[in-house]
Amino acid sequence: MTGSELESPRYLEDDQLTIRCVVTVFKTPHVATRNLLNKIEVPPSDITENLGRLLEGEEDTDVAFCVGGETLVAHRLVLAMRSPVFKAELYGPMLEGRSHVVTIQDMHPAVFSALLCFIYTDSLPDMDDNKEGSDGNIEMIRHLIVAADRYSVDRLKLMCESILSERLDVETVVTTWALADQHNCSRLKDACLEFLTTSDVMDAVKATPGYKNLKKTCPSALVDVYEKGMAKLKQLISRSK
Amino acid sequence: MTGSELESPRYLEDDQLTIRCVVTVFKTPHVATRNLLNKIEVPPSDITENLGRLLEGEEDTDVAFCVGGETLVAHRLVLAMRSPVFKAELYGPMLEGRSHVVTIQDMHPAVFSALLCFIYTDSLPDMDDNKEGSDGNIEMIRHLIVAADRYSVDRLKLMCESILSERLDVETVVTTWALADQHNCSRLKDACLEFLTTSDVMDAVKATPGYKNLKKTCPSALVDVYEKGMAKLKQLISRSK
Repeated sequence: MTGSELESPRYLEDDQLTIRCVVTVFKTPHVATRNLLNKIEVPPSDITENLGRLLEGEEDTDVAFCVGGETLVAHRLVLAMRSPVFKAELYGPMLEGRSHVVTIQDMHPAVFSALLCFIYTDSLPDMDDNKEGSDGNIEMIRHLIVAADRYSVDRLKLMCESILSERLDVETVVTTWALADQHNCSRLKDACLEFLTTSDVMDAVKATPGYKNLKKTCPSALVDVYEKGMAKLKQLISRSK
Repeated sequence: MTGSELESPRYLEDDQLTIRCVVTVFKTPHVATRNLLNKIEVPPSDITENLGRLLEGEEDTDVAFCVGGETLVAHRLVLAMRSPVFKAELYGPMLEGRSHVVTIQDMHPAVFSALLCFIYTDSLPDMDDNKEGSDGNIEMIRHLIVAADRYSVDRLKLMCESILSERLDVETVVTTWALADQHNCSRLKDACLEFLTTSDVMDAVKATPGYKNLKKTCPSALVDVYEKGMAKLKQLISRSK
């Protein structure tokens, strides 16, 4: 909940915020636990840590990727269990023997490395520490959407869509919409449309280089935006009547 | 917190329980999120689901275990990343080639199968649905402590120690103590000692078959219990003076 929402008269009364807590008391604690002062705590799952070390350690790897002049190694089993595209590529009928070298076109090594990190650990490298996200991070997230779409790593794609949807602004919304459109990110497209139609930003957006560029290179995408934006605006108008 | 703890005068005043909540309001919400009605939710990590399917699917397995007349298959990579003992056994210098058949002595196939399940998914099979635990489940948990100790799967061992520590009773506490002692479960041993010394149960415990059996087969373990129990009781007495 944002600060402004919280400060609305709906929640504040006499400048006081009342929070109601429901506390459940279990009436019959287990006989044995009643006397147990030192409960044995079980640490959280460490399976992603184990997988992360497997990737870092580079032990027993059985596939190598050449990406933009760099070589990155991995385990076919892990890649195949996490991505149906890798599974088809690495266990397909055309492939035999134990060692594979695969050349990856059109991808920066840092992006492929982040993709591998996500595949092994279900989280993004580093960027967690820097949630506000510099421009460089946002650029990486865009590239990761492309990579996640290419290898059908759906949770990574959704994670990137979520991050971009929270960073939408006048400068980038059209570029983000085009990216979402190209890589079948329906949720991110919805978020872009919502940003465009529920904020009063359209005039500012039209003045951005992103908009002008898209109008030149792919006007059909803009037509889509306008069509859906118009439909959404009409809905809003009819609801408010 | 148990009901009786909550009802103590330390928390109740005039039969009222006051709960203080600290609410943090972030003063500068991000411009872009302010208008976003449909936040894109990222589903929880599915990596253990992927690993679980790998075990169930039995695809691309490279090791087979003969356990009590049954054959169970698995992936050496997963076993090695989760257990240093499996790593040494399956990747040791003595072993070559792609296929391995390993015979496991002194273990029931159901126990080994549960161990595999934990190794792949970081959780116990089925028993989660039945938290109160029938006697059969408790027996399985005991066997799993032995298996976890044998393969150095530390989190599984702690999880089983935690479950047993919550099920301690007069009938089983001595048997549980002997098991904990044999498999280096220091936390569970502490819980047993605590149960014996802070409850008034020693006379009842002495009448159980478990106690009589241990007195016959391994009296030195009982001596340990008494030594540590005495020391603990002395501590309690000196504290209460």
